[in-house]
Amino acid sequence: MSDQAKAQKLLARLPRGLSDRGPADVAATEHMLAKIRETYELYGFEAVETPFIEFTDALGKFLPDQDRPNEGVFSFQDDDEQWLSLRYDLTAPLARYVAENFDALPKPYRSYRGGWVFRNEKPGPGRFRQFMQFDADTVGAASVAADAEICMMAADTLERVGISRGDYVIKVNNRKVLDGVLEAIGLGGDDNASRRLIVLRAIDKLDKVGPDGVRDLLGKGRMDPSGDFTKGAGLAPDAIERVLAFTAAGGDNALATTANLDAVVAGSDRGAEGVAELREIASLITAAGYDDGRIVIDPSVVRGLEYYTGPVYEADLTFTVQNDEGQTVRFGSVAGGGRYDGLVSRFRGEPVPATGIAIGVSRLLAALKAVGSPLVSAATSRGPVVVLVMDRSEIGHYQTLVATLRQAGIRAELYLGSSGMKAQMKYADRRGSQCVVIQGSDERAKGEVTIKDLVLGAELAGLGKDGAGKDREDYLARQAEAQFAVPEGEVVAAVTKVLARHG
Amino acid sequence: MSDQAKAQKLLARLPRGLSDRGPADVAATEHMLAKIRETYELYGFEAVETPFIEFTDALGKFLPDQDRPNEGVFSFQDDDEQWLSLRYDLTAPLARYVAENFDALPKPYRSYRGGWVFRNEKPGPGRFRQFMQFDADTVGAASVAADAEICMMAADTLERVGISRGDYVIKVNNRKVLDGVLEAIGLGGDDNASRRLIVLRAIDKLDKVGPDGVRDLLGKGRMDPSGDFTKGAGLAPDAIERVLAFTAAGGDNALATTANLDAVVAGSDRGAEGVAELREIASLITAAGYDDGRIVIDPSVVRGLEYYTGPVYEADLTFTVQNDEGQTVRFGSVAGGGRYDGLVSRFRGEPVPATGIAIGVSRLLAALKAVGSPLVSAATSRGPVVVLVMDRSEIGHYQTLVATLRQAGIRAELYLGSSGMKAQMKYADRRGSQCVVIQGSDERAKGEVTIKDLVLGAELAGLGKDGAGKDREDYLARQAEAQFAVPEGEVVAAVTKVLARHG
Repeated sequence: MSDQAKAQKLLARLPRGLSDRGPADVAATEHMLAKIRETYELYGFEAVETPFIEFTDALGKFLPDQDRPNEGVFSFQDDDEQWLSLRYDLTAPLARYVAENFDALPKPYRSYRGGWVFRNEKPGPGRFRQFMQFDADTVGAASVAADAEICMMAADTLERVGISRGDYVIKVNNRKVLDGVLEAIGLGGDDNASRRLIVLRAIDKLDKVGPDGVRDLLGKGRMDPSGDFTKGAGLAPDAIERVLAFTAAGGDNALATTANLDAVVAGSDRGAEGVAELREIASLITAAGYDDGRIVIDPSVVRGLEYYTGPVYEADLTFTVQNDEGQTVRFGSVAGGGRYDGLVSRFRGEPVPATGIAIGVSRLLAALKAVGSPLVSAATSRGPVVVLVMDRSEIGHYQTLVATLRQAGIRAELYLGSSGMKAQMKYADRRGSQCVVIQGSDERAKGEVTIKDLVLGAELAGLGKDGAGKDREDYLARQAEAQFAVPEGEVVAAVTKVLARHG
Repeated sequence: MSDQAKAQKLLARLPRGLSDRGPADVAATEHMLAKIRETYELYGFEAVETPFIEFTDALGKFLPDQDRPNEGVFSFQDDDEQWLSLRYDLTAPLARYVAENFDALPKPYRSYRGGWVFRNEKPGPGRFRQFMQFDADTVGAASVAADAEICMMAADTLERVGISRGDYVIKVNNRKVLDGVLEAIGLGGDDNASRRLIVLRAIDKLDKVGPDGVRDLLGKGRMDPSGDFTKGAGLAPDAIERVLAFTAAGGDNALATTANLDAVVAGSDRGAEGVAELREIASLITAAGYDDGRIVIDPSVVRGLEYYTGPVYEADLTFTVQNDEGQTVRFGSVAGGGRYDGLVSRFRGEPVPATGIAIGVSRLLAALKAVGSPLVSAATSRGPVVVLVMDRSEIGHYQTLVATLRQAGIRAELYLGSSGMKAQMKYADRRGSQCVVIQGSDERAKGEVTIKDLVLGAELAGLGKDGAGKDREDYLARQAEAQFAVPEGEVVAAVTKVLARHG
């Protein structure tokens, strides 16, 4: 190509934080989503989907770590100057949907949806600007039985996709308890909303930075290993310790934990209300038998989103994996959610209770890969049967051969390139084909086709020239199986036989 | 609510041209896509998916009817000032993907993908700013056998989703033929590119505006019934007639049509090349038996996208439906595509042949609804079994009942609202439930549950008080079937019996 053509050539690349997905990933995701859907439908949830674009004001701004306007969300103006945004989660759009269709919907309204969401933020390792969530929400149920149900459904879902009992825990907490703590240390009231948010997000980093890191974030601030400094909430030392005591209030069981929390929220009505809700959830969990470690009360969970108003919950995978730096770490969170009683109300001007969970689809898929789930391994399939083109003038006839195979339900394709036999065999190899069908002029004259078993052929080739040494008769018999001719009318039976050999 | 609250209340609404999807639509689409996927995989196509956002320059600008920059595509700047766009089709992103992964892909490379695309244009009836396409493409095959294969696969796909043979036709044409005509009337060369585009888009409106409308669009311009004026291509009268002769060159069969085209392109090498390709496609179609009306050569098809370079094709549904104005019209196009040899080349600086088709998913779904496809009717399912909450202090026990039903694979839910029995029955009705499970304190004491068959109950209620008149014994027997008590341990068997009654 000329220098000019080179200079004009466009660069084929994706913006940061975005990625393509190959066939194995697409198929594994589909299989996993089908299992999630099955579980949700068993619980009476029904599908409803909203578009990717909404009015910016309808979505609101509830993302963590986004202090500047327009940060976090991809936004653009419509031709009538109104601001539109790509959805950053599936909860805010659902709130808009429910508010818009309020009278037509049964209430309580259980629904689910899966889909891509977008975050306009700095991408990092394992952090994407487009990722998929799968949500379930119950709108119109004020009772914490709705929260308990979603936690149990989350546990069932994880087991159904292949996470073993004991390898996960659904952790439940309550924002009202934290509100009680904050009230007790003088951070109540509208004026302190932004400081409360800083405290919330400091606690949310407990998993990543540990109690000492959170202590810094609650105080003057914290310098991370990369040298980035995060300004702290500026709390007094005794306030900091009280917040930390809240996060460490987890006991051996729900009874012990809620007793610890009673002490932490002493003096706050809202805090007491939160602990009472946790007790009710614990009793429902126990009645349903999920108190065997599947669902626990854990005060260290707060969730980073601003819109939660009551119970919050998180599905945590407890097994370890190697991270990108080769360290052994707990797999961690794959789903989270909580009660967001204010989100639909923004449109309705009346209280509308709601609670829901979002599964991080890529995170859960990564977990299934880590535990070797059959949902993932079943998704890598062999390539189709390739019918070679030995004589381009006969392409119509080769097409008929391929069609015959397809009509029998066999995935099959015609080689459509312009290269010779050697390249065609290499192509079939690259496609992961188990066999090819060949008809040269000799075979055509005899009304035959040759079937070549590529898997067996590769095995025999692996034995080398001396492969025959041990048992010559067996070797020859296998060679005859690896490549043989049959009448054209028997092509389906012959190909089926070869495919059956390799499962 | 106070006036102030009302004033502050957000309006729950969607931007124009966007819509939500309910459970029946989501399920019907899923079923349809599964059938399309099956067909594509049978042909050896494999799934690959690209993200929704690409660099604006990587997508290029090939949309019809978009003369102003930034029109047609949703675009926004990244924080490093680079322009990003939402994909407007799935072909341009595939070209980027193939170019980026060129050496790693087998060639010819057959792939498919479904997904939402976005058009930033004036929405109208049945015209959306977000819609779903399902594409299949073959990259790296210069032979028109690849185009013929996609046309045959399109025919198979339509039949597999439930469009009967005879109710559709795949129409094939070739851009080179049109180029030949344009050359012959003096519109060849780079200088005339924009005028050629106007001619192309005029012809593309043939279905909508008829030959006279196209004649106007090829000449001075056309005023549509709403009073909007579209400027024309300004061709001379004899040039206009020659273009119209091209669109009308269709004969009784491929032989006749290609003979007519020979005359239309007389004197143009490019035109002759195009007719030769059509002859080759016709011969492949014939060899495979698809020349029975499933696939025809039709010179009136040009497709509106600018990037096509050779064969173009369109799947047209020939049955009639009532449109929004109550007129009887042909259903029309549900899929289209063609060869786009230049699209990957933009990145590679070397020729990379490619051809592919896009199914309009919502259009095809609308067609399936019109023909009453079982894929659609199977997607409307009955609601789950509802377990009523008669005594809120026993909610843990009701939960166990629901869990028992679910463990037996029965879709079941607990009523989670705070209303009394009447409202709960109304809720179950609204959910489309076939039966409810009731346990009041009396039943609880006896260790029983009451099963209420809502379908049978509604039937009996429909008979009115005199329903018993005809056959009192039968009526009473049916009443006993519509509501009955069983020991709690038999709840699964009893519910299963009721569900089985209604299929």
